[in-house]
Amino acid sequence: MLQTRVISPAEGVHPYPLLIKRLLLSGSRYEKTREIVYRDQVRYSYATFDQRVARLANVLVGMGVGPGDTVAVMDWDSHRYLECMFAIPMIGAVLHTINIRLSPEQILYTMNHAEDRFVLVNGEFAALYNGLAPQLEQVRATLLLSDGDAGGIALPGQVGEYEALLAAASPHYDFPDFDENSVATTFYTTGTTGNPKGVFFSHRQLVLHTLSMAGVMGALDSTRLMGSHDVYMPITPMFHVHAWGVPYVATLLGVKQVYPGRYDPELLVQLWRREAVTFSHCVPTILQMVLNADGARDVDFGGWKVIIGGSALNRSLYQAAKARGIQLTAAYGMSETCPLISVAHLNDELLAGSEDERIAYRIKAGVPVPLVEAALMDEEGRLLPADGETRGELVLRAPWLTQGYLGEPEKGAELWRHGWLHTGDVATLDGMGVIDIRDRIKDVIKTGGEWLSSLELEDLISRHPAVREVAVVGVPDPQWDERPFALLVVRPDQRLDARGLKEHLKPFVEQGLINKWAIPTQIALVTEIPKTSVGKLDKKRIRGDIARLQAAGGEFLSTL
Amino acid sequence: MLQTRVISPAEGVHPYPLLIKRLLLSGSRYEKTREIVYRDQVRYSYATFDQRVARLANVLVGMGVGPGDTVAVMDWDSHRYLECMFAIPMIGAVLHTINIRLSPEQILYTMNHAEDRFVLVNGEFAALYNGLAPQLEQVRATLLLSDGDAGGIALPGQVGEYEALLAAASPHYDFPDFDENSVATTFYTTGTTGNPKGVFFSHRQLVLHTLSMAGVMGALDSTRLMGSHDVYMPITPMFHVHAWGVPYVATLLGVKQVYPGRYDPELLVQLWRREAVTFSHCVPTILQMVLNADGARDVDFGGWKVIIGGSALNRSLYQAAKARGIQLTAAYGMSETCPLISVAHLNDELLAGSEDERIAYRIKAGVPVPLVEAALMDEEGRLLPADGETRGELVLRAPWLTQGYLGEPEKGAELWRHGWLHTGDVATLDGMGVIDIRDRIKDVIKTGGEWLSSLELEDLISRHPAVREVAVVGVPDPQWDERPFALLVVRPDQRLDARGLKEHLKPFVEQGLINKWAIPTQIALVTEIPKTSVGKLDKKRIRGDIARLQAAGGEFLSTL
Repeated sequence: MLQTRVISPAEGVHPYPLLIKRLLLSGSRYEKTREIVYRDQVRYSYATFDQRVARLANVLVGMGVGPGDTVAVMDWDSHRYLECMFAIPMIGAVLHTINIRLSPEQILYTMNHAEDRFVLVNGEFAALYNGLAPQLEQVRATLLLSDGDAGGIALPGQVGEYEALLAAASPHYDFPDFDENSVATTFYTTGTTGNPKGVFFSHRQLVLHTLSMAGVMGALDSTRLMGSHDVYMPITPMFHVHAWGVPYVATLLGVKQVYPGRYDPELLVQLWRREAVTFSHCVPTILQMVLNADGARDVDFGGWKVIIGGSALNRSLYQAAKARGIQLTAAYGMSETCPLISVAHLNDELLAGSEDERIAYRIKAGVPVPLVEAALMDEEGRLLPADGETRGELVLRAPWLTQGYLGEPEKGAELWRHGWLHTGDVATLDGMGVIDIRDRIKDVIKTGGEWLSSLELEDLISRHPAVREVAVVGVPDPQWDERPFALLVVRPDQRLDARGLKEHLKPFVEQGLINKWAIPTQIALVTEIPKTSVGKLDKKRIRGDIARLQAAGGEFLSTL
Repeated sequence: MLQTRVISPAEGVHPYPLLIKRLLLSGSRYEKTREIVYRDQVRYSYATFDQRVARLANVLVGMGVGPGDTVAVMDWDSHRYLECMFAIPMIGAVLHTINIRLSPEQILYTMNHAEDRFVLVNGEFAALYNGLAPQLEQVRATLLLSDGDAGGIALPGQVGEYEALLAAASPHYDFPDFDENSVATTFYTTGTTGNPKGVFFSHRQLVLHTLSMAGVMGALDSTRLMGSHDVYMPITPMFHVHAWGVPYVATLLGVKQVYPGRYDPELLVQLWRREAVTFSHCVPTILQMVLNADGARDVDFGGWKVIIGGSALNRSLYQAAKARGIQLTAAYGMSETCPLISVAHLNDELLAGSEDERIAYRIKAGVPVPLVEAALMDEEGRLLPADGETRGELVLRAPWLTQGYLGEPEKGAELWRHGWLHTGDVATLDGMGVIDIRDRIKDVIKTGGEWLSSLELEDLISRHPAVREVAVVGVPDPQWDERPFALLVVRPDQRLDARGLKEHLKPFVEQGLINKWAIPTQIALVTEIPKTSVGKLDKKRIRGDIARLQAAGGEFLSTL
């Protein structure tokens, strides 16, 4: 370490830890009349929000929650969840956002693993929770959440109902200072194998993530995502990386916030219209569902800016959304990265370029946001050139990356190697620093002695007008090692077979975009493609399904 | 301290210190072709800037600069200064920005006090520097800065000329990591008494200040100051709180930057026009000079956004600027606060209100920016209510406040009391958290048993159409303790005497805005009002001048 001149107590140090409570000092305190909305149920001002966060803190402390305790939440996306995102860490406790889409066994595993001591449960999950309760090892007390009449619902260890207790609590709480490296939140990420793994983020990490994201969203003119006058509605769940951290940014800026509960497409369209939503974020699948909703048929979505993350944004979805008035922006991140790493935007050179090139850069993972360092690394830990061609594993440094996995140091050591967090994604970096994700390392298809990106092939296939959804995986092949296999959902009243797909892909072979052995010799036509709990293509299940389809044979298979 | 769950080395800590080098990771690396411009002399791209910062680092290390060494700069506002703002702290050294408007004796004092070891001197200051050199106690080497031919200029200890050495140096430098609490910059603030005092800021402080400012500038829609497509030209000196820290924000965002050297009004207008400047910041005096410049007479400044700080923004300047197309925004800060504390913007309630009220809030000090806490305190350290009426000393907490004064712990203890930085400003805070600065504590006029704000009286007097500039101070009075005395600059071809001023102020007495003993019984008409080195009204010198004017009598005095 360099011997720099460090500010020392002798020079009168007045500590100012970066704590989540500081995010409430500016926007939300000034925009007192702006609203926070939950479906048709709740609508209140930021002034009320401020008081409710203090009330909740008093309720939690009254329940016995102490610093360092883990407090779990099982709820739909709501104003209550937002209150928990502030109040729980602000009293020094740890918020565990439970992934309600996991299986009961997995939820049980995560709750015991995270050592949950207190649980806030939406009445709609009471049956689920009550089933788990006998096996929960550490839970001391529960709090019932409910949108209306909670009569008749009872949880084991229930100390009361959220609204009733908040109403009775004081609207003042003197939130203390403590170490900025205190853990604020934790949640579990589902790998393709083994148990879910717990990531965790500190106050310092969440504050820095919020500041960097606020700067990016407000200041980048080619893709301005959210200013203080926007209206925000998340469409990625709050249990999943705190709805990508955007609720913290929205609250910092005092933006109007709309929480939709569940992600029912008809309801989303209704809320979008009624509340004049201008900014959202979601995975591609959800956007597809919204665009295809009955209530959306004749809707002009002009003025709606949507970040697409979680999976790659392909050109056909970008153009379909644009035709409906929606400006899509690609962004990249993962559970382990809090999540924001990069956002697509256009520099002066690209803005002056062709429409085709502009779209190409709007759908890439984009440019690292302030404070993020991205690089490519080979298997031996050597950094690779950022030349737009060389592929390597994307590795990251940033002030908001999970420092490991809860209680699993060996998995943490796998994540962090050579001083960099390893994403498991294969990418290129170009001379402008733009990240282009080519594939998950484990989804790359090894065929004909080369590596074929399943994502690229999906993108090319998705350009066929009959294709509504596509997933490509590698299947074992005695001659080629692996061959690509495509699972397709075809649009109503359209047809496609392996021959038609080959005709569609041939020009790309001629252009040198793919090799000829990238053309699938067999495809399967299905009505639905398996997704993970957060809406990504579930390639593990897809591989299993394909094996079953191939074993069964039948009309849904089309072979060249 | 609460026993929270703190991320510990056992959980695999991967440190990521907040260092100035991180500000170069995003915007400036992506907007490679955007320009940095210095007058007519220099115009280069961000790609070149990146390389020049590395070249400068190599030159500095070659000169013998080591971590913890203080490196002083005496230059006009230039691309070189911007390079120094990055390269010097990025090698672990401390940048001392010399206030070239101080007297030679004061400059000498600050250079010895800061223990400057290396000095970068613009050739135009060579005579000044050479005069000081024999008394500089620690300087080991100097570097000559020059806009063109530096032939014939020689500095004691000169190792070379900046451009020549940069050209010969490698454009690569592997900037190291070190403690984020390392001091990055230092400079001196001139009080009204005694020697200048040195404030200092760490890497962490400057990074957090930059992130918060970027968010505020980009995201606040009612007063959007700077997005990535703006063109930035500072009009507050880089030696003074790093040009208010904005060059760091502009570089983070990759914004086009225009450095004007000296603040010659004609040149500023020329540069504004030629480079299509859209965003600047300055003190009121400089803006007045620009508006009054010969070259500005028929110019429509439409689209120019200007932050006014350093002194209060009054209504007449706001309206005069608006009539010329300039959108002024008030902001508040001081040398000790890095400097940004608050920015004026309008919330939904104010936007829906009257034009008159909107202007009232656009010229107040505004709303604390993210992470800043503001409060009012009485002399005994009690916090006072934020009711818009109660006046108290404005006190602050924020992550970027100077932790004291260099080598003067007793003055630092005066600055920091009861855990808050004391600004020396009397203010009110209203229920929306808006700061309204009423006066410097020492400039408040005690008259008729009440406290009269010299700033408020200046504002009311400035509304008289004949008044171009005004300064009000208290002068001793046997009956009233003090009475206000006004020093006035009257517009060409206009007239004003004490009686006329009384007529102008009477309605404000009737409206209850001021008491009748706030009306000055004596005024002096002058051609210029004394200013400090950073362009603020120099009330210390004004008091002296008034005493001399009163002793001399004569036509410039007008008495009721």
